[in-house]
Amino acid sequence: LTSRLPHVGTTVFTRMSQLAAESGAVNLGQGFPDFACEPGLVDMVTEAMRGGHNQYPMMTGVPALRAAIVAKIAAIYGHRYDANTEITVTAGATEALTTAILCCVHPGDEVIIIEPAYDSYLPAIELAGGVPVLVQMTVDADGYRVPWDKLAAAVTPRTRLIIVNTPHNPTGSVLRAADLQALADIVRGTDVLILSDEVYEHMVYDGQRHESMCRYPELAARSFVVSSFGKTYHVTGWKVGYVAAPAALSAEFRKVHQYNVFSVNTPMQHGLAGYMADPAPYEQLPAFYQRKRDLFRDGLRGSRFELLPADGTYFQCVRYARISSLPEAQFAEWLTSEIKVAAIPVSAFYQRSQESGIVRFCFAKKEETLALALQRLTSL
Amino acid sequence: LTSRLPHVGTTVFTRMSQLAAESGAVNLGQGFPDFACEPGLVDMVTEAMRGGHNQYPMMTGVPALRAAIVAKIAAIYGHRYDANTEITVTAGATEALTTAILCCVHPGDEVIIIEPAYDSYLPAIELAGGVPVLVQMTVDADGYRVPWDKLAAAVTPRTRLIIVNTPHNPTGSVLRAADLQALADIVRGTDVLILSDEVYEHMVYDGQRHESMCRYPELAARSFVVSSFGKTYHVTGWKVGYVAAPAALSAEFRKVHQYNVFSVNTPMQHGLAGYMADPAPYEQLPAFYQRKRDLFRDGLRGSRFELLPADGTYFQCVRYARISSLPEAQFAEWLTSEIKVAAIPVSAFYQRSQESGIVRFCFAKKEETLALALQRLTSL
Ligand SMILES: CSCCC(=O)C(=O)O
Ligand SMILES: CSCCC(=O)C(=O)O
Repeated sequence: LTSRLPHVGTTVFTRMSQLAAESGAVNLGQGFPDFACEPGLVDMVTEAMRGGHNQYPMMTGVPALRAAIVAKIAAIYGHRYDANTEITVTAGATEALTTAILCCVHPGDEVIIIEPAYDSYLPAIELAGGVPVLVQMTVDADGYRVPWDKLAAAVTPRTRLIIVNTPHNPTGSVLRAADLQALADIVRGTDVLILSDEVYEHMVYDGQRHESMCRYPELAARSFVVSSFGKTYHVTGWKVGYVAAPAALSAEFRKVHQYNVFSVNTPMQHGLAGYMADPAPYEQLPAFYQRKRDLFRDGLRGSRFELLPADGTYFQCVRYARISSLPEAQFAEWLTSEIKVAAIPVSAFYQRSQESGIVRFCFAKKEETLALALQRLTSL
Repeated sequence: LTSRLPHVGTTVFTRMSQLAAESGAVNLGQGFPDFACEPGLVDMVTEAMRGGHNQYPMMTGVPALRAAIVAKIAAIYGHRYDANTEITVTAGATEALTTAILCCVHPGDEVIIIEPAYDSYLPAIELAGGVPVLVQMTVDADGYRVPWDKLAAAVTPRTRLIIVNTPHNPTGSVLRAADLQALADIVRGTDVLILSDEVYEHMVYDGQRHESMCRYPELAARSFVVSSFGKTYHVTGWKVGYVAAPAALSAEFRKVHQYNVFSVNTPMQHGLAGYMADPAPYEQLPAFYQRKRDLFRDGLRGSRFELLPADGTYFQCVRYARISSLPEAQFAEWLTSEIKVAAIPVSAFYQRSQESGIVRFCFAKKEETLALALQRLTSL
């Protein structure tokens, strides 16, 4: 059997979580909370199941959930999507990303990816028969930045899609209004589409605002905007996300979605729809996570790790040059098995592994978990 | 935006369910139960959520659920898969089917489909860049049969995959041991793989047994076997299924699954794992559905519909030549909007719509629902 994805192995997240479990390490690798979601959300899902919401939902998503998504986007970003034709509920953000790529990338089409990049983009492009074009972020003491001039130069007549991700995994950087302006300048007058991975949209710190594509009509008009309830509501295992896109793009998205998974867990959708009526949980999320970020950063300040900026997401990147000269993958393994704190090597987010001496920690953890990790990390 | 699936519209199931709702018709179209699942199953999912099982599960599935699947297959079909390397939990059977096709079909590879065929096979092959090769079942008073000689003649050096489906949707026919023998004779000595859609495995009637690929080591060794908890436990909206396949095939399947959806709803998996400890629900399923089938068939016997055999699935196909000469799609629409009973035209399961004057009813309904439908259908 000849592989369709010959370069693919087990994801770095699975491998590092396994090593963390085997080593008895504090797992700051794979991004997921180690605390419970709100009991009220669980109750709403239970109510939906007991109320008999257990059969196929609409292929596009439960109407009440789509309406709640429209209302939320309108309230925060000022863009009103049409719930019937422009919102599709997905089996997590991963399905949304892969389906968006499969529905618009034809064999030979070029897709621009900004590295470091979440690890599902490349295999999805490969499955679609697309050609990835890689543009690397720059990194200095001020953190990671997208070099828009280089990205502009990478656009060709074969460019079909540009994938952006803000707040950005793994770097924790966020795009600013000027970045979106640069992106708009690049795509204006072309038929290039944008796939915008915004699953950490509610985790932006220090009073900054999330620059969603939805804020800019010119960009929204050509964008698939992806988000995730798992990230926002501390239920990464529920696998419910959504894509918002203009009707013409949503129509193509739904053709693939319909035959990829058909539809998404009914009781979870009903529970989430009810829970979204209250904006407090996502409104309070920046403060909730900023506290954890600050606790983690403050704790590391006395250590030999050098902190990079962490403006968004629940990730903190650090340089470890003063501790070790190991390549990132080996350093992360050593940190996990010997120091008992798991991390993710940022090199895993590059097609051709690139060494910057930087690893990523996830701070979506209980304070006691972070304290235990800090105790170990500051001993180095 | 040039479509990747230019021939695809909204599925016939969605369209007929919509028409049924608009018409106030009894919906015997789309296949789903109109009765509740067992409260005990709901309780187990609730317990999993309250117990904190809400974060990413393993990419391959919750270990307890994979172990339960292995045990069930071994108990019924006598084949013992390895839970670690040969079972993958999927976001419903649709994801399993599409992922299986995407993981082994390369552009230009031929895939043999037996028509009438479930409507997701063709678009998945199209996405993979494969070439569908269609073989039509024959139909007479004894029901639908696969013409194995024609299928053998359709095999070429470019054949990569044969898709089989037993018990068969929409026809309700089941493959017999002799059919599997014929299939084994065809693939022996080739590297052709089999994708076996067995989502109705627990719905075979009149004391017959389900002929799973798992019963035949020679076939199991080259098969992706797909099943669905939604069908078996009356929760079509939960979207949990699985694929069982030899390690080499599962490895390729998982590469695509990992980047298609990554993983499947955690609390549902835990709930299902606990519920599977008791074999009674699936052991009792044939009797449960045979009663409904018999009630529905007996009711139609006095009508002008002609019954085809219904050996498996929760579907009953009927000829309507004595009632109307309309093409199937129009007849089904008329039946829905005027007679107030929704059905699915079997022509929708052919790439080039083929007219046999046959529609499909779903009898996975409460007895009162079936009685109301029968009252209307026997008035014709
Ligand atoms: C799907 S597992 C990976 C979770 C995640 O987004 C991350 O750790 O970056
Ligand atoms: C995924 S909706 C279709 C349900 C079904 O399997 C059928 O009605 O044939």
